Amino acid sequence: MTVDATRDTRLRAGEVAIDLPPANDAGLIFIGLIHTPWTTREETPRQGRLDGPVCRLEIFGPWVPSLQGLEQFERIEVLYWLHRSRRDLVLQSPKGDGAVRGTFSLRSPVRPNPIGTSVVELVGIEGAVVLVRGLDCLDGTPLIDLKPDRCSYTPIASPRAGD
Amino acid sequence: MTVDATRDTRLRAGEVAIDLPPANDAGLIFIGLIHTPWTTREETPRQGRLDGPVCRLEIFGPWVPSLQGLEQFERIEVLYWLHRSRRDLVLQSPKGDGAVRGTFSLRSPVRPNPIGTSVVELVGIEGAVVLVRGLDCLDGTPLIDLKPDRCSYTPIASPRAGD
Repeated sequence: MTVDATRDTRLRAGEVAIDLPPANDAGLIFIGLIHTPWTTREETPRQGRLDGPVCRLEIFGPWVPSLQGLEQFERIEVLYWLHRSRRDLVLQSPKGDGAVRGTFSLRSPVRPNPIGTSVVELVGIEGAVVLVRGLDCLDGTPLIDLKPDRCSYTPIASPRAGD
Repeated sequence: MTVDATRDTRLRAGEVAIDLPPANDAGLIFIGLIHTPWTTREETPRQGRLDGPVCRLEIFGPWVPSLQGLEQFERIEVLYWLHRSRRDLVLQSPKGDGAVRGTFSLRSPVRPNPIGTSVVELVGIEGAVVLVRGLDCLDGTPLIDLKPDRCSYTPIASPRAGD
């Protein structure tokens, strides 16, 4: 915890933080919890791999019926809340070498809305638990959405004017 | 507005709504606004196309420096808040024919956390405005994040134990 706490308060050379506006433009509902093998940032991969370990998405009660039909997809998109990330950096130095990049040019967890997105392989669904491969987040990360990967999804409803 | 308001309150045959828990597990900051050619849901495409019209992402002042470095990517991932969507359906009937599917097996805008994700082609950056092709959202949709598409992104920092 000490290392993570330090990272969250100190700036590296060249990094720029702003005074964060209040985070109340919209509110999220956590729909579950993600269980992974990684309990510290140091061991968490930078990017998930589809041949990585199986991780468990525990879906909270009210949302379990929403899993119906998900089993037919091989790849699903997972959205989660990077609850340990600071949100106020506009310029970041990923290597800590003084070279900085804008936050939107990085997939760093540090961003104004720390939402992670991953495309994962669906391994199976067991009741309220969805088993997947390809994640790269800490154990205990709150889940905010699941949907079929856009590449394998065809809308059910008929096309509209803009299609 | 009348048509949209009706859609937002009536259920189709077979659809199931729940009592929504309070949406206060985490709070979002809108970082900009999306300008598209579509002003009603009826004309908005079901899915964006990379050969679709150019849309404008207007970035709010504090976050403009975060665009530095984004210009090098051809494809970027855009996250936005589907502000007109109800959030309480666990089963939905996309065709309105009585056949229902779980919310997580659809890419419908109706979901507990109505966050849209699109991978778009970066056309250009002009000051605080990012020009892209491939969106499928209403004009005026709030923007919540921009990041390089995972397929074309290599982490800047060195690999960690899990990589």
